[in-house]
Amino acid sequence: MKPDASIADAVKLAGWAKRTQRSALQDLLVATAQPGIISFALGLPAPELFPVEACAEAAARVLASSGAALQYAPPAAALKARIVQLMARRGVRCREEQVFLTAGAQQGLSLALRVIVEPGDVVITETLTYPGFMQVLEPLGVRLVTVEVEPDTGLDPRALERVLRAQPPGCVIYGMPQGHNPLGYSLSVATRGALVDLAERYRAVILEDDAYGRLTYGDAAPALRASSETAVIYAGSFSKTLAPALRTGWLVAPESMIERLSVAKESADINMATLAQRIVVSMLDHMDYEAHVARLCAEYRRRRDAMVDALEQHLADEARWIVPTCGVFIWVELRRSIDTTALLRRAIDDEQVAFLPGAAFRAERGGGRATRCLRLNFSNCAPERIHDGIARLARVVRASSLPR
Amino acid sequence: MKPDASIADAVKLAGWAKRTQRSALQDLLVATAQPGIISFALGLPAPELFPVEACAEAAARVLASSGAALQYAPPAAALKARIVQLMARRGVRCREEQVFLTAGAQQGLSLALRVIVEPGDVVITETLTYPGFMQVLEPLGVRLVTVEVEPDTGLDPRALERVLRAQPPGCVIYGMPQGHNPLGYSLSVATRGALVDLAERYRAVILEDDAYGRLTYGDAAPALRASSETAVIYAGSFSKTLAPALRTGWLVAPESMIERLSVAKESADINMATLAQRIVVSMLDHMDYEAHVARLCAEYRRRRDAMVDALEQHLADEARWIVPTCGVFIWVELRRSIDTTALLRRAIDDEQVAFLPGAAFRAERGGGRATRCLRLNFSNCAPERIHDGIARLARVVRASSLPR
Repeated sequence: MKPDASIADAVKLAGWAKRTQRSALQDLLVATAQPGIISFALGLPAPELFPVEACAEAAARVLASSGAALQYAPPAAALKARIVQLMARRGVRCREEQVFLTAGAQQGLSLALRVIVEPGDVVITETLTYPGFMQVLEPLGVRLVTVEVEPDTGLDPRALERVLRAQPPGCVIYGMPQGHNPLGYSLSVATRGALVDLAERYRAVILEDDAYGRLTYGDAAPALRASSETAVIYAGSFSKTLAPALRTGWLVAPESMIERLSVAKESADINMATLAQRIVVSMLDHMDYEAHVARLCAEYRRRRDAMVDALEQHLADEARWIVPTCGVFIWVELRRSIDTTALLRRAIDDEQVAFLPGAAFRAERGGGRATRCLRLNFSNCAPERIHDGIARLARVVRASSLPR
Repeated sequence: MKPDASIADAVKLAGWAKRTQRSALQDLLVATAQPGIISFALGLPAPELFPVEACAEAAARVLASSGAALQYAPPAAALKARIVQLMARRGVRCREEQVFLTAGAQQGLSLALRVIVEPGDVVITETLTYPGFMQVLEPLGVRLVTVEVEPDTGLDPRALERVLRAQPPGCVIYGMPQGHNPLGYSLSVATRGALVDLAERYRAVILEDDAYGRLTYGDAAPALRASSETAVIYAGSFSKTLAPALRTGWLVAPESMIERLSVAKESADINMATLAQRIVVSMLDHMDYEAHVARLCAEYRRRRDAMVDALEQHLADEARWIVPTCGVFIWVELRRSIDTTALLRRAIDDEQVAFLPGAAFRAERGGGRATRCLRLNFSNCAPERIHDGIARLARVVRASSLPR
């Protein structure tokens, strides 16, 4: 056998794969998992709030009767029925025939795009957006067009219209109107209406990522999908309300897309996640899901408040931020022009605290204010630890003598 | 809201998605699941042989201690270590750094191809091949080239060389040397050596699908990956030895590919199947996996023998077949030119027995002897039921007066 050194030459990689780098996410999962590190870096739920017992009991139930839960089987109709009920909580009326089960919201975004775009098609994102969506775009050869976004007000319909006017009809617009990742904003009802109107007028399709939609700390506006079943494809997930490792999410899509989504998922992973789907159905049947979500929201709200308090106490003179009413992130902009990518390394080394630098969320390379911004997650740490972590972060920022 | 009828116009589908039809698999799962139908159609394992208790106990163990099994986490190193050990049973020496965990072999094939091919690249398959692989190819815009295959002898290195000679270097060759689906053949050691030599000589990469590799009824030749770590990417799975619904498989690939596979899987589904991976590790730690595989092989051999006996008893004058030494399928060629696609409908309606017609496995449209062939699965039925089903099938064949 040849030594591994020669292998890089032997296997030709596709162009996109050569260009693409491993995401910061995977590396940070390793770096920030060291004991002693206080990490605000990733969007991790609080594991102590997972419904572990409900999950263990559900697994025991579905495996008790027979081997059926371990066999290939079509997507669980019972789960689609439950999702139709849950969508009402997001203001959405839909039918089981419009629900497509996925391995989390990420797979929903990936499959939906694969089914509707071709190389050269235009996909519109905000200038600051979820990097996992950019990873989906990478191999598809689409033309990326960005819309300037303000961290505090979110996606601006007027800015979007300027972009849409310059594009052919049939664009795909990716958006996260509720609990935006990384900016934390949630759009007003009026803005939502304007966005859907625009999509319908310009024959565009909005891919609505609602992964955090149920984690609200105040009134939640209905999902975009509530206003249009033709112009919006909705992606939801149990990852943030039950647990990520169940790998169970869904799309609500036009019925005409479902069969094609099914073909795409078969080719991706056979489309038979029997065990996980039955466990989720059994959990929903036996637990009080709404009470569980309410407990989650109450605790995450406490953590958000703790982080905002700590920011005010330690960083008010160095930074500004918006208090989110949904989701698990606070977007922080430093007043001084400090490069937060360089700051992260020092934060980990000197103070054992981690965050994600703003530059990680840029849809395109280039400057902009994002380089002095950072994203903080508040769902994964208890309040006292949040206070400690923000105090550490403030020391790193203060010690920073690197104006650009 | 607009009625659903208008939706087909509203969402533009990608070209491949418009062309692609829902696979026969999903429809047949529904049709053949009716009580009373004896189905030899799908490649389903025997659910009564699933290690259900081991799985339930493993689930209870990993969920007992904490919520960690439900959280996002990097791919399980413990599982990679176990897979390195298991690969030795297929004659393969590899390192954990070369193992990439997937949601089953299908996802392994899909991700591997996405990482190494670009539109216009040549992918070589046999004229009769696994339809799930054709589904993976569909959206990639590759150039498909086929090699004639004989059901009894399998992929012929001389035929492959004629094809390779006419193509640019860097082709991808898809093959299933062990327990071929649908043909049932397993290649000789000499043929395997010749294939790997060819791949190295023509700088091609073989994508080796070994999903059925451990289900052997005699001596098993080493996997192709045993002879070359540069020219072969290996796809394995626990779907046929533990259970499909665990959605756990793996690739053994050149280390230089692993990071790119990781990016591709992140974009596909986040790459954090924590729960399933921990359940599989815990099962492997607590059960006697090799004894379990041996029991599976003994029972599947009994079922293969029952099907061969029944074929000899009921169909010897109407058909010929090869006795497989691995896998779960028998490929049957009818002596008369009966279209087995038409035969299937009558088989279900008149005799409540199902199979897959040969035409379902053609890599390209066109004639060929496949239209008078059919694939029979023997793993999913007990021997008495197999006898009954083959008797029914024989009645349908005999009643058929449709020579073409």
